[in-house]
Amino acid sequence: MAIENGNRLDALLAARRATEALCAPLRTEDHVVQPREAVSPPKWHLAHTTWFFETFLLGRYQPGYHPAAAEYAFLFNSYYESVGSRAEKGERGSYSRPTVREVLAYRRRVDESLGDLLASPLARNPDVEGLVELGIHHEQQHQELLVTDIKAILHFNPSRPAYLEGSTEFHPRPAKPESNPASAIGLSSPPAPKPRWIAFPSGLREIGWHGGGFSFDNERPRHPVFVAGFRLEDRLVTNAGYLEFIRAEGYSRPEFWLSEGWRLARQEGWKAPLYWEEIDGRWSEYTLGGTRPLDPDSPVCHVSHFEADAFARWRRARLPTEAEWETACIAGDAGLLQMTGELWQWTASAYLPYPGFRPFPGAVGEYNGKFMMDQMVLRGGSCATPAGHLRPTYRNFFPAATRWQFSGIRLAEDG
Amino acid sequence: MAIENGNRLDALLAARRATEALCAPLRTEDHVVQPREAVSPPKWHLAHTTWFFETFLLGRYQPGYHPAAAEYAFLFNSYYESVGSRAEKGERGSYSRPTVREVLAYRRRVDESLGDLLASPLARNPDVEGLVELGIHHEQQHQELLVTDIKAILHFNPSRPAYLEGSTEFHPRPAKPESNPASAIGLSSPPAPKPRWIAFPSGLREIGWHGGGFSFDNERPRHPVFVAGFRLEDRLVTNAGYLEFIRAEGYSRPEFWLSEGWRLARQEGWKAPLYWEEIDGRWSEYTLGGTRPLDPDSPVCHVSHFEADAFARWRRARLPTEAEWETACIAGDAGLLQMTGELWQWTASAYLPYPGFRPFPGAVGEYNGKFMMDQMVLRGGSCATPAGHLRPTYRNFFPAATRWQFSGIRLAEDG
Amino acid sequence: MAIENGNRLDALLAARRATEALCAPLRTEDHVVQPREAVSPPKWHLAHTTWFFETFLLGRYQPGYHPAAAEYAFLFNSYYESVGSRAEKGERGSYSRPTVREVLAYRRRVDESLGDLLASPLARNPDVEGLVELGIHHEQQHQELLVTDIKAILHFNPSRPAYLEGSTEFHPRPAKPESNPASAIGLSSPPAPKPRWIAFPSGLREIGWHGGGFSFDNERPRHPVFVAGFRLEDRLVTNAGYLEFIRAEGYSRPEFWLSEGWRLARQEGWKAPLYWEEIDGRWSEYTLGGTRPLDPDSPVCHVSHFEADAFARWRRARLPTEAEWETACIAGDAGLLQMTGELWQWTASAYLPYPGFRPFPGAVGEYNGKFMMDQMVLRGGSCATPAGHLRPTYRNFFPAATRWQFSGIRLAEDG
Amino acid sequence: MAIENGNRLDALLAARRATEALCAPLRTEDHVVQPREAVSPPKWHLAHTTWFFETFLLGRYQPGYHPAAAEYAFLFNSYYESVGSRAEKGERGSYSRPTVREVLAYRRRVDESLGDLLASPLARNPDVEGLVELGIHHEQQHQELLVTDIKAILHFNPSRPAYLEGSTEFHPRPAKPESNPASAIGLSSPPAPKPRWIAFPSGLREIGWHGGGFSFDNERPRHPVFVAGFRLEDRLVTNAGYLEFIRAEGYSRPEFWLSEGWRLARQEGWKAPLYWEEIDGRWSEYTLGGTRPLDPDSPVCHVSHFEADAFARWRRARLPTEAEWETACIAGDAGLLQMTGELWQWTASAYLPYPGFRPFPGAVGEYNGKFMMDQMVLRGGSCATPAGHLRPTYRNFFPAATRWQFSGIRLAEDG
Repeated sequence: MAIENGNRLDALLAARRATEALCAPLRTEDHVVQPREAVSPPKWHLAHTTWFFETFLLGRYQPGYHPAAAEYAFLFNSYYESVGSRAEKGERGSYSRPTVREVLAYRRRVDESLGDLLASPLARNPDVEGLVELGIHHEQQHQELLVTDIKAILHFNPSRPAYLEGSTEFHPRPAKPESNPASAIGLSSPPAPKPRWIAFPSGLREIGWHGGGFSFDNERPRHPVFVAGFRLEDRLVTNAGYLEFIRAEGYSRPEFWLSEGWRLARQEGWKAPLYWEEIDGRWSEYTLGGTRPLDPDSPVCHVSHFEADAFARWRRARLPTEAEWETACIAGDAGLLQMTGELWQWTASAYLPYPGFRPFPGAVGEYNGKFMMDQMVLRGGSCATPAGHLRPTYRNFFPAATRWQFSGIRLAEDG
Repeated sequence: MAIENGNRLDALLAARRATEALCAPLRTEDHVVQPREAVSPPKWHLAHTTWFFETFLLGRYQPGYHPAAAEYAFLFNSYYESVGSRAEKGERGSYSRPTVREVLAYRRRVDESLGDLLASPLARNPDVEGLVELGIHHEQQHQELLVTDIKAILHFNPSRPAYLEGSTEFHPRPAKPESNPASAIGLSSPPAPKPRWIAFPSGLREIGWHGGGFSFDNERPRHPVFVAGFRLEDRLVTNAGYLEFIRAEGYSRPEFWLSEGWRLARQEGWKAPLYWEEIDGRWSEYTLGGTRPLDPDSPVCHVSHFEADAFARWRRARLPTEAEWETACIAGDAGLLQMTGELWQWTASAYLPYPGFRPFPGAVGEYNGKFMMDQMVLRGGSCATPAGHLRPTYRNFFPAATRWQFSGIRLAEDG
Repeated sequence: MAIENGNRLDALLAARRATEALCAPLRTEDHVVQPREAVSPPKWHLAHTTWFFETFLLGRYQPGYHPAAAEYAFLFNSYYESVGSRAEKGERGSYSRPTVREVLAYRRRVDESLGDLLASPLARNPDVEGLVELGIHHEQQHQELLVTDIKAILHFNPSRPAYLEGSTEFHPRPAKPESNPASAIGLSSPPAPKPRWIAFPSGLREIGWHGGGFSFDNERPRHPVFVAGFRLEDRLVTNAGYLEFIRAEGYSRPEFWLSEGWRLARQEGWKAPLYWEEIDGRWSEYTLGGTRPLDPDSPVCHVSHFEADAFARWRRARLPTEAEWETACIAGDAGLLQMTGELWQWTASAYLPYPGFRPFPGAVGEYNGKFMMDQMVLRGGSCATPAGHLRPTYRNFFPAATRWQFSGIRLAEDG
Repeated sequence: MAIENGNRLDALLAARRATEALCAPLRTEDHVVQPREAVSPPKWHLAHTTWFFETFLLGRYQPGYHPAAAEYAFLFNSYYESVGSRAEKGERGSYSRPTVREVLAYRRRVDESLGDLLASPLARNPDVEGLVELGIHHEQQHQELLVTDIKAILHFNPSRPAYLEGSTEFHPRPAKPESNPASAIGLSSPPAPKPRWIAFPSGLREIGWHGGGFSFDNERPRHPVFVAGFRLEDRLVTNAGYLEFIRAEGYSRPEFWLSEGWRLARQEGWKAPLYWEEIDGRWSEYTLGGTRPLDPDSPVCHVSHFEADAFARWRRARLPTEAEWETACIAGDAGLLQMTGELWQWTASAYLPYPGFRPFPGAVGEYNGKFMMDQMVLRGGSCATPAGHLRPTYRNFFPAATRWQFSGIRLAEDG
């Protein structure tokens, strides 16, 4: 662990302040509601990340530490079986207390104790070091969830209020114009770049994290995988490309869909990506900056795995496996655009343990491993992902039905 | 209609202020949540009562009136089919906007327009007069619902915060000591008064509203009913009395229960009235003043019709019909205690139209009549009921499974 | 009890044989299925009525009687809490054993033991006498349920097989032509008779069973009721009359519907009575004799209380109370048609205990009383009702949503 | 395709007769019921396999063929979107018609037409050849489903009737005594053989079908996979071994369970494999030959993937991937026991397309591919699997919660 203590406290506090900054534009009421089970109230995120430090760090390593309130363990434990009973996930939006103000005071109290701990000799205990670093990354994961949950919460209101009026901060960008030869010859408004297929040869590759710095347990160990030759599209599927699928009646043709996806699309009445709306033949999209006309060149966002997969089949292509995606991502000079930091990219891979996977030791062993069933891997990181999480080996995962994350589509085909 | 215009505006504004005063002790967050479908967020009550005036009065009678916001009709329509689509009842707690502050501004705006309307010649239009009066009574009905919903909301929090610490404002009182002969001989702590049966003879009676002043459509018309001789207990069943039922294993003996009540009690794990808790053999009760030891002499509160009925059967008694209750209530000198203003009293009568029933004219015809199915009548009014609603003919109604209202038990038997 | 022992056994065996005769036209497979929770497999009815005699009569009064099979108590107890655990109602169609043949053997075995019991001195024990009579009436009630359940079972098959091809045995008849003055003047195909209103004056009436012979506990005691003046239509609402409601968009106009009925009609997609079908603008109706064109003059059948009530409101009328219906029925010379033996007639009365109601003694006290909640009373008896149950005081009851019973509509209005 | 026409018809008819033979020991009633949604009535299997031939073969290739009955397409289509609407899966047990006799006549009718088709020149059409072969394999897959569904159906009856009293035909066998050195030294009752770990080295392997003969689309194409060194236990986990897990409180310790498995085990009250029962400390097991004492040496059967995975984690081992399993299976001289024909063996692999997967052409393209989501692969084939399906490349798949299939556990660990 290379960071020295003072810096580690700085990093910790920076992460903590960043979480609070995300909530600053919200009204108090926006912190409280839970319009769907998957969406947690912002108040809950603020408290849960704090409880994580309190429970796994302060409660175990800081002598004489007393938890802020007895009921917080019940209210703010997300899913850790080993640390006691907890509220039903679907009821997080039914609790009015503690208030936002009380949660912020709770954050302050725990931050102060963390400062004390990191100023003490215990700060050099490797377990403490590891948990501080895990806690920072955990906090950052919840920063992205805050963005996705805030979007769902605000959108649920019929008035569709903006989070930051006019802002494009949390919105994926079109593939850069400079990557488009047209822009080089001085066209003021260049036509959308045409996607190209980038080929990768067969071979035995290595995927997974190695080397120094932080990584999650599920990215390890690095291991060999045979990857047959394949091609990736050099950029993400655009809104314009996805509209063609809609106009080709893609949502009404079962031959493109997995069985469960077809059933779900019928049941839920899916006709377009989440947050799209058609009025008088014109499509608009709700963003955190407000509702705006659909930009044809921006990558299509907020699609489920089922939609991404159906779209790919309609295009006579497929989604990449996570090994293909990672292989391509680290290839470096391949000319691939929008690989990280725009949208999470659904892969064709189920979220399963890597060969030789070992969970984090202790109670935080429940962090990742126990969810390795019935979920699909996403790669790349989105416009809502903290910068430190944008790495080729990072494995995000959600059920195939998930739409409220910043998820998009990159096509692959056999090489 | 006897009230003159100035007074009518005063009465209206007094009712409006009273609603807001009930919310004053709440935190912003308490206004937002909906822990069960039946419980509406206080923010919703504040807005819905306002929408009622806006829709049925201002929108129809005030020339040039523009609704405050287009989406309020969707958000704050409770159940009126004739005035457009509306949000699902179970999703009222999923909306963060408008905020509490915006709802209070909405109230102010509508109050001002109501003031304008009542200062104009339109104020003497009998339809306007009728709707103002109905709107006031509607507002008052929601005042009681606010109290019951606030109790449910605060209680759902594991910290069980008080609404007004130590207050007994919204808590039923024991039968008055002066009604107890023991108190006359100077005992400092008189034993609980022993209930007595009061007998009423057979005869043809008249029940239902007549005469001047406001009444709801469901209280009319006054009509004859033959009532066989019966007896009522002179007071409500006490906590001590109900504890005997619990100790006699009443919750585990199907012979006392209606079939659906038995099923529900199993499914929900009912072992005692809502808000009761037993710790180490001692019973306490959550009240709006905080949790406190169960008072044996106070009337048992927050029981469903099923529990009231099972208790009565265990006592070899029954619940009174609404005709019996009303007959007894107006008998006057019968020595009955706690008939009004303590607890709603479950009756053995289904909520059905009186012979000759006519709903309110127009859209407000949906007010009462369309709910006359699968509900039971309660009589008497509770400690949370506005004074103007405490009258012998008032018919409250809820499904037999309801527990979160201030509902208690008065026993009857054949005469 | 007037029937002497030999006759009583004859009556018992006649009832038993009648039940089996109803199943004779069925295939084995038709005995097994349960297309909706409310519909029991015929095999279950055959066994349950047998279990009733075995449990309440043989097991308690016949010395040395051994139940046929230990698991029958679990499988064939309908709802008696006092005699042990039982299968979920919704799973009755999930059991393949005992087979139909085994159930018929079970019937034979129990019938023989009943013969022995009734040949012994115990037959004169009044409790035995009472339970034999109750068992016969219980068996007959299940005969009607068999007819309604068989209809539901056969209709669920896409091939819509007839029970008895071409038969009109279980189908209500039009009001008799001779009741139509038009028929007196010799028209070969007389126009449908026009319904007339029959008036009944106000007064204190007595309703409920009195005198000798069998009655159910819920028909007693006879008691006075004040009935205000009212009018009844002299015949049941016809298919033609109901079609007018459909053509007037009655199923799409909430102003006619109770709130819960409106919700349910939307959810279930009700557009016409159960068993009606429209193809190319022509209506047909599934009957136990097969599908046939809708007869305009026959009474409309298989409507829920919600539909009956909405229809009545559309006609600016209402449903009769059970006191009105019974008063009219016993009036005798009133010229009313189709009062009994055609269709059950929904009343405006909730199913509640009569004043002074006492359940049957012992375990069979669960027979009727515990269902007195959230059900509506029907009167009159249908074309599927055994003759011995067609009496003015008989109270049938079902939830307001029920459609698969032979239920129709008689209109009332204030006098 | 090597089979010549006469032989192909023989093979076809043999498969058809085998299906019917499986149903021969059943009562008519056993053919009808559906105690859980996943379990289809035997009558449905008999008809669906027939509909498969009728729809995909006769209807498309036999000139002038008329379907047996219009409604069969609705009733017996399992999941093919391209051939019209169909009954809900959960309602298969709600149809009484066609009867078993009618279904058998339907089988006969279709078999005769198939005979005609195969006697005609069309029999040499490669599409016809392919569909005949697919139809045979489809029929055989349903033979295994028939066995598992019959077991579920009979077991649901409280009397727990045997399918074939005393038979062990559909029951997995202990690892053969001759494989146990103890038996060589003449012990009459040899102790259970102790499992051994068999090691396999790292390397690039090929898995998937190649060569001639029939295979399903999901077994293809053969492709290279890198497999790291691993070990497999030489035999299946026994009942005795699994009992240790139960006695070690394995069902109550969340640390061994996937999150969804833990939730499900709580919800369903899992305490042991399906069909096990403990009475007075003695375990018995329901089998198709009747209930019998648990044999400690037989392989544990009817466990979900969640249970297999939790058991493996408790043993500090894991489940094999499908590549490991297939590699080991074809290694030949490795000394592995019970690899095929005893129990399906849960793997750690999600059911996903092989690289380069192509579904069957035409409507039967829905056969396998559209289910490649949220299911786990099982390998090896069971005691209920037709012999022709016991091959190393065969991929069976079920959701991880599945217990009613003949599924067992083989342990793996890193090499």
